[in-house]
Amino acid sequence: MNPTAAILVIGDEILSGRTRDSNLHFLAQELARVGIDLQEARVVPDRHPVIVQAVRDLSGACDHVFTSGGIGPTHDDITADAVAEAMGVPLGVRDDARAILQAHYERMGVEMNEARLRMARIPEGAILIDNPVSSAPGFSVRNVHVMAGVPRIFEAMVAGLLPRLTGGTPLLSQSYRILRGEGEIAGPLADLAASYPDLSMGSYPFQQNGAFGANIVIRGSDSTRLHEAMTRLAAIFPE
Amino acid sequence: MNPTAAILVIGDEILSGRTRDSNLHFLAQELARVGIDLQEARVVPDRHPVIVQAVRDLSGACDHVFTSGGIGPTHDDITADAVAEAMGVPLGVRDDARAILQAHYERMGVEMNEARLRMARIPEGAILIDNPVSSAPGFSVRNVHVMAGVPRIFEAMVAGLLPRLTGGTPLLSQSYRILRGEGEIAGPLADLAASYPDLSMGSYPFQQNGAFGANIVIRGSDSTRLHEAMTRLAAIFPE
Repeated sequence: MNPTAAILVIGDEILSGRTRDSNLHFLAQELARVGIDLQEARVVPDRHPVIVQAVRDLSGACDHVFTSGGIGPTHDDITADAVAEAMGVPLGVRDDARAILQAHYERMGVEMNEARLRMARIPEGAILIDNPVSSAPGFSVRNVHVMAGVPRIFEAMVAGLLPRLTGGTPLLSQSYRILRGEGEIAGPLADLAASYPDLSMGSYPFQQNGAFGANIVIRGSDSTRLHEAMTRLAAIFPE
Repeated sequence: MNPTAAILVIGDEILSGRTRDSNLHFLAQELARVGIDLQEARVVPDRHPVIVQAVRDLSGACDHVFTSGGIGPTHDDITADAVAEAMGVPLGVRDDARAILQAHYERMGVEMNEARLRMARIPEGAILIDNPVSSAPGFSVRNVHVMAGVPRIFEAMVAGLLPRLTGGTPLLSQSYRILRGEGEIAGPLADLAASYPDLSMGSYPFQQNGAFGANIVIRGSDSTRLHEAMTRLAAIFPE
């Protein structure tokens, strides 16, 4: 059994339609590659009790929770507080995190102030997640991995974090394009899916120059079974 | 108080990283425009008990739930069954839905078969949602609005559905670009936010040619207050 995961995207800007999130899609691809099964994604607003509840629910339900957003220096950055409360640990400025920020601001020639120091507040017992882009670290508290929302920073943090997590069997997938309407594919495809309960088969319809078709995607962790099912699918619907 | 809403995106293809969802972002923009507050988004896999639980949770917590995906003719299209179970109503082929499909297939010159007839199964008491793209209707069961996952169809269904829902005061937003690091903006911005508790202020950092800056977004429903707060922000951080 592969480890399971959820992603929690935190931010009013996603729910108000201002920003189109890309971290969910990026993380989904990375997790499939390392064999961690993404079971749920949630987007919640910058509201303390809502974040606390979501972190509690998801960290209880999955092996890993990845959060995105809300760890900067401004008043709307409340993720560290909410995660600390959800996990029942105190939050305070930590020396190593402060030193990382201090060194960064010295290089930049700007001063550490109260707002910037907020980013050195780390829940007790957490492991830092490296931020090679703008220094302010993320952190892991037990199974909750807290990362920045800015996609470039989120992606760099994920790259640093994943090698430390134990993955499973990567999710493999193959797809096959059929130029018939889904209504004609559905019957034989359901029969095929029933004889491969270890694989998941999805049908994704498209329309092209007025003709209907569907991409059939077969997913699973056993490449032999996947290949066998795909061969049978191609025999049922020859090109 | 504006009505509240959640979106439930259903589909393995999103969580496996194969497909990047766009319906959440589209709906978020549309709801802001009509004054329905999007409070949460969830993505769940094509698994019956998970969909049932999510529909129950969200339909209890919000005024409206919008679902996307899983209403086609293939075996992985299980949304109608799950929604009917969650809402405690029976599901069966409905004459008006069947007639819509029948007319569509006659025009296309293809035959109605068992798989296609699945798309005429509508929970008891539901109101149909028009599908001008490929005919197979969506439906509203009480406060749960069930729509297709294909973005072009989802968007057309939303356009047909929204005029029938009662909206509230549209969410307005203005943004202001400041060419300073968030660490310098944070203090004065927090003070400003504290004196406008009816508005939400978000800071979204960027980096451009090595310089740090942030877009400050102020959101609210009262245009006078919004304008006033924005004027004060611009006075604090002149261009």
